[in-house]
Amino acid sequence: MSNVQAVHAGWVIPVEPDGVVLERHTLVIDGTHIAAIVPTASWRNDLGATEIDCRRHVLVPGFVNAHTHAAMSLFRGMADDLPLMEWLERHIWPAEARVAGREFVRDGTRLAAAEMLTGGTTCFNDMYFFGDEAAAAAIEAGIRAVIGLIVIGFPSAWASDVDEYFRKAEAVHDQYRGHPLVTSAFAPHAPYTVDDAALTRVATLAEELDVPVHMHVHETVGEIEGALATHGARPLRRLEGLGLLSPRLLAVHMTAVDEDEYELLARTGVSVVHCPESNLKLASGFCPVARLLGAGVSVALGTDGAASNNRLDMLGELRSASLLAKGVSGDPCALPAAQALRMATLSGARALGLDHAIGSLEVGKLADLVAVDLSALGTQPIYDPLSQLVYASQRSQISDVWVGGRHLVRQGELTTLDSDELRASATAWRSRIAEA
Amino acid sequence: MSNVQAVHAGWVIPVEPDGVVLERHTLVIDGTHIAAIVPTASWRNDLGATEIDCRRHVLVPGFVNAHTHAAMSLFRGMADDLPLMEWLERHIWPAEARVAGREFVRDGTRLAAAEMLTGGTTCFNDMYFFGDEAAAAAIEAGIRAVIGLIVIGFPSAWASDVDEYFRKAEAVHDQYRGHPLVTSAFAPHAPYTVDDAALTRVATLAEELDVPVHMHVHETVGEIEGALATHGARPLRRLEGLGLLSPRLLAVHMTAVDEDEYELLARTGVSVVHCPESNLKLASGFCPVARLLGAGVSVALGTDGAASNNRLDMLGELRSASLLAKGVSGDPCALPAAQALRMATLSGARALGLDHAIGSLEVGKLADLVAVDLSALGTQPIYDPLSQLVYASQRSQISDVWVGGRHLVRQGELTTLDSDELRASATAWRSRIAEA
Repeated sequence: MSNVQAVHAGWVIPVEPDGVVLERHTLVIDGTHIAAIVPTASWRNDLGATEIDCRRHVLVPGFVNAHTHAAMSLFRGMADDLPLMEWLERHIWPAEARVAGREFVRDGTRLAAAEMLTGGTTCFNDMYFFGDEAAAAAIEAGIRAVIGLIVIGFPSAWASDVDEYFRKAEAVHDQYRGHPLVTSAFAPHAPYTVDDAALTRVATLAEELDVPVHMHVHETVGEIEGALATHGARPLRRLEGLGLLSPRLLAVHMTAVDEDEYELLARTGVSVVHCPESNLKLASGFCPVARLLGAGVSVALGTDGAASNNRLDMLGELRSASLLAKGVSGDPCALPAAQALRMATLSGARALGLDHAIGSLEVGKLADLVAVDLSALGTQPIYDPLSQLVYASQRSQISDVWVGGRHLVRQGELTTLDSDELRASATAWRSRIAEA
Repeated sequence: MSNVQAVHAGWVIPVEPDGVVLERHTLVIDGTHIAAIVPTASWRNDLGATEIDCRRHVLVPGFVNAHTHAAMSLFRGMADDLPLMEWLERHIWPAEARVAGREFVRDGTRLAAAEMLTGGTTCFNDMYFFGDEAAAAAIEAGIRAVIGLIVIGFPSAWASDVDEYFRKAEAVHDQYRGHPLVTSAFAPHAPYTVDDAALTRVATLAEELDVPVHMHVHETVGEIEGALATHGARPLRRLEGLGLLSPRLLAVHMTAVDEDEYELLARTGVSVVHCPESNLKLASGFCPVARLLGAGVSVALGTDGAASNNRLDMLGELRSASLLAKGVSGDPCALPAAQALRMATLSGARALGLDHAIGSLEVGKLADLVAVDLSALGTQPIYDPLSQLVYASQRSQISDVWVGGRHLVRQGELTTLDSDELRASATAWRSRIAEA
């Protein structure tokens, strides 16, 4: 039996080269990789390929969710419309203290993986405790994951002190080294929860293990004011002093950027991860995306966790990013459709050091891809499939998703996870969490 | 045969009283009206009612889209990511000049009605030319419509001068007087396109015919600067002088509000119609929703037209409104879920003078209602159905929609319009418009 799939698409948007839309093309998957992208009219089934009809669909690279806390999907909608500290101190942290163990992370990540996969996310960058459980859930689902090797200056069910966080970080890294779906990244929580000694150690180990560093940075103005009081420096400057500003760093949120910092971010090659919906919902401020891009900073996109969004929906997120960038910059030309799609795919892959393998539809890359059905009335008529994809389509129009050539969502249905089981599990966790 | 329907719902959120969530209740529709809302456990089928199982669903009032240009759905995605004047002058207006006649309005409104109905909108407030065609399309679809009696100081295919706009306005008003689905509203386009004489006439006729006045007001700062130069007054103050500030007025957009104007809007009873996604996409500015509500101004919600959004999706719009209000005000408690839902339903009905009949689920009101299936993985687990509705659900989860008791969307399928025909019509229009 042939291990070749031929996806006949109405349109293919490869992301690289930039701005290209190929009409009526066939994307050929050979095993795990993209073997060809050719006009459908010129394609012949010489290899006994399985043919998949996506004539009403646009094919795009799988989305890279560059910042989430997957397991927190079990907290979705538990506490909304609250001030940040009340939300954290009275709801999220106490709930975590009660339930956030191995089983919670496994089940929560599984639910998140199901939501992300059906929404076209093929790779997620996670930050949470029990990274080994998150990795196991991702492998079970078949989704690509970058597991956060968390470091934080507080004890948790995962580790009791900084040394233990580092020991467990290295153990999780080693456990999944060479895995086809799982890589890892150091995940020091934030400048205000990790001290200089630990951050220096993160910088050194990230170099040695050759992994990214994933960190909340400048989420709010309050964080910066606190840092000025405590450290006499803005967090980004402190990280510079500790040797953390490099292409390895994913600086998540960055809602406050001063004049000098645009140049600093661009020069050091830091990737900013923009989480527009979470920033809005928590009233964290506005990331100046258009200015960052204009300054040459690479910007990726993330949903943040379901406790503060409350969706892990990258298609919705990239639309929100594009609309918000226009509103914040006052320029209706800011973050146009093609650039928003790139942010949600190739720029995320690049931030994670995975752009040699994923993030665009190119021959030789892994077959991580998504088919979006544009025949829905809400995306009619079709002047420009890119515009309909970014500004009008919704994740329910995503019919098929592949990760490394595996067909994980087929006509809207998950092939690796059981939705009824996930629903029952979520309901059981709700009872346990709400009644605790 | 009985004309009674009993909808057994997991939850009913009636909007009035405010903040109430009823669990496991049955909503009984007798003909066109809501006859009862009772605990499902206490309900007995004494009247031979048709029973509808919505146990996994939340029932809410149908959404009231308080500002749209329905026919423009045929321009969806025709021209994005452009400066406002280039968008209007080089794309929208020339396209309108070529094609915006009777047939265009009929077909475009039909497409919009289909999109709106499947998305839970049961009433829309329209502003476009050929209002009689828009009304006919709405009646064909079975959706409730408030038809804009347009007045603008420029000739169009609909009318050659202001006198003709008024003659046709009165004719359309008279044509649909007493219709169970269609009412009308004067729709002077904007302060900068309608002169004082015409606006005075609108004010007088709106009183005489007892209809609302639907107008773009303070869409951008540029509009205000222009008005100061031309009229020596901000548009809102000019409208005050012309006698237009009253509970009849729907002031659409209001992205710029000065200190005095909060009190002025509240005192005169004007409804502001907020269109967050259109304001973002066109970079028009931010409507200060939280401050308006705090000042006692009634705020309704609209999608604007599909040329500037590009969705007519009120469930998405109310989420965007809630998130954006938090971001703009810097307060994560701003526009909480219940208030956002009210904005999208009862406040819209009130703005249109229809709150005696629609906008909430109350016994005696018309049965305009929507069932949203919360069993999707993206809305699990369910701590609070209101939160899942506003912050997590998507319009694809809307399974059933009724307008005046008619079951217009049944398990996601339109019962009055043919989707294949609408798709074919949209494609034909695309060819005609793009190739003209």
